[in-house]
Amino acid sequence: MMAIAGTKSGHQFMFLSDAADSCAAPYGELLCAPLDDTQAQDRLAQFADVVTYEFENIPCSVVQRIESAVPLHPSSLALSIASDRLQEKSLFRQLGMGTTDFFPVDSLELLTEAFSAFGAGQAAILKTRTQGYDGKGQAVINQPAQIADAWEQVGQVPCILEAKVKFSREVSMIAARSPSGEMVFYPLSENVHREGILRLSIARVDDPLQQQAEAMARRLMEHLDYVGVLALELFHVGDELFVNEIAPRVHNSGHWTIEGAATSQFDNHLRAVCGLPLGDTAVSQSVAMVNLIGTVPSEKAIAEIANATLHVYGKTDRPGRKVGHITLVDDSKTGSDVFAENLITLLDMVGEKELASALPFVATNS
Amino acid sequence: MMAIAGTKSGHQFMFLSDAADSCAAPYGELLCAPLDDTQAQDRLAQFADVVTYEFENIPCSVVQRIESAVPLHPSSLALSIASDRLQEKSLFRQLGMGTTDFFPVDSLELLTEAFSAFGAGQAAILKTRTQGYDGKGQAVINQPAQIADAWEQVGQVPCILEAKVKFSREVSMIAARSPSGEMVFYPLSENVHREGILRLSIARVDDPLQQQAEAMARRLMEHLDYVGVLALELFHVGDELFVNEIAPRVHNSGHWTIEGAATSQFDNHLRAVCGLPLGDTAVSQSVAMVNLIGTVPSEKAIAEIANATLHVYGKTDRPGRKVGHITLVDDSKTGSDVFAENLITLLDMVGEKELASALPFVATNS
Repeated sequence: MMAIAGTKSGHQFMFLSDAADSCAAPYGELLCAPLDDTQAQDRLAQFADVVTYEFENIPCSVVQRIESAVPLHPSSLALSIASDRLQEKSLFRQLGMGTTDFFPVDSLELLTEAFSAFGAGQAAILKTRTQGYDGKGQAVINQPAQIADAWEQVGQVPCILEAKVKFSREVSMIAARSPSGEMVFYPLSENVHREGILRLSIARVDDPLQQQAEAMARRLMEHLDYVGVLALELFHVGDELFVNEIAPRVHNSGHWTIEGAATSQFDNHLRAVCGLPLGDTAVSQSVAMVNLIGTVPSEKAIAEIANATLHVYGKTDRPGRKVGHITLVDDSKTGSDVFAENLITLLDMVGEKELASALPFVATNS
Repeated sequence: MMAIAGTKSGHQFMFLSDAADSCAAPYGELLCAPLDDTQAQDRLAQFADVVTYEFENIPCSVVQRIESAVPLHPSSLALSIASDRLQEKSLFRQLGMGTTDFFPVDSLELLTEAFSAFGAGQAAILKTRTQGYDGKGQAVINQPAQIADAWEQVGQVPCILEAKVKFSREVSMIAARSPSGEMVFYPLSENVHREGILRLSIARVDDPLQQQAEAMARRLMEHLDYVGVLALELFHVGDELFVNEIAPRVHNSGHWTIEGAATSQFDNHLRAVCGLPLGDTAVSQSVAMVNLIGTVPSEKAIAEIANATLHVYGKTDRPGRKVGHITLVDDSKTGSDVFAENLITLLDMVGEKELASALPFVATNS
């Protein structure tokens, strides 16, 4: 989607990917090679005026090597922090941002110690420090008897143990910063996950926690001298936001910005990494995004829903894989009841109708 | 732009083009061959579930041959009429639609006769019946002394001579019809040409002539059993609309629909030719399009203008060639004064500042 945005405005792309079926391939030249292939890295650096990435599970050494040859954003510093749960959570604390309690654990002994330190009745989540994605590399521990299994399950690698937090909702802040220090912030996205995978996002214009989330994003981006789009995944706990993790890239919960905002997150990421003025993030209508997991429903059924736009990524269908998404915007002529009805129809179509009840304004219409 | 729209929603494309540098190439498989290459036509027909075209100067025989093998829209009938000024103007008359007076002329003698038949003081335009494009194949005749030169200039081919009409403005109607007979209509686009080339289009929501234009489009599409997007180029003369010509394809004056309308003309064309329900054409904000002729201005300067989106087609720069366009939408937070100011800035950037005075609401702000 970044390449589509950039191609339209006249940019040219080269991609380095270890996947032969990379869905970006149609939009430029694909270097299909292991990410640590230095010849491929050199070709990329030679071709490009600026390099970026859209996945944080890349070895930092790869990014550092390319960064030494050509401008690259977000920086390897931002990547190294965002791709290590211990480093990122430590930074949140350092900057005075609310986050759940956690302990680093490198062994079964430390894990057992940490779990008991939380106290009786406190459930916890064991998460690998690196390489987590869509709920992978995680295990819930409700009682001491589950500790050994959890340690097995995550592969006995360096982890953090987090206290499981009771939140009223999950939201994300998508923000962007340019090399000049200009910053823009999208309205909060309210997100619903199932089985660790994002299923539904709804833009929340004028959310009472917008300012709090913007302040967090501003603090992080300034501290890191950050360039590009940054996503903050946040828990709404009581009256405040806990930051769960950050992603140094465009984010699934911001895909609705393509149709829903004046400038999409992809356009703003490209503007930022190219040193251009950032674009308006205003959202003037209701907008939601439904992920397509594993398979794409009938195009005809989707086209029958007013103001639904289908995005298909060109990936092979596979259970649990994000193969596309649908954006739904409000038809200003028909009002919010129709929007809610259409959203329920879409959720039903992807087998997620029960998620509608998670969203107050949708529930009143179901 | 059609392929970009279709690729996003999961369609796959094959293109037949006689241009090796076809700017659609990145979005599918390019068959670079003369259009009348029957092997290439057969490959296209074998690949495709449905075939369409985006340029009307294609030999009808090519379209007929492909149409006999695979569904193709708009039909060769629609193409044959739209690509011949005599046939299209005769159809306008047959359907009772206002159009300027005209005579078919096949020789210098008939041309001389026709010009004098208009009467003294009536200027005329000589236009080739086929292959006209961006003002090419046209010559203005103000007085009898210019007749012979005009006949030379258009190449002494079958023509029509049209009475030059005094219009207050040029507008276009972009409409779409699906195989089921469903029709949708975009708000009128007001268009400004210079040297026969479209420079500027502005969406006119609630234009008093909207209904008249929709009625014309409806009559034409029903008469032709039309499938796809149809563009009507219209002159506003007194209180009524004269239809100048039709284009059986997506149209430059509808490019603003990408950012400006709920569904773009490209999406609706694809929906129509694929037999899908058509999408909403609602326009909820001010929107204008400025063509980039010959060259693309600085991306940075464009990015500094709020709500301006740059489209670059990837064509080699060449004087008089349409190499891209910029869409400007209204920032609802700042109001129409800012929109008008930004539009003037954009026109200035492409060397067309004087065009602003052609548009009443812009002129008051300049």
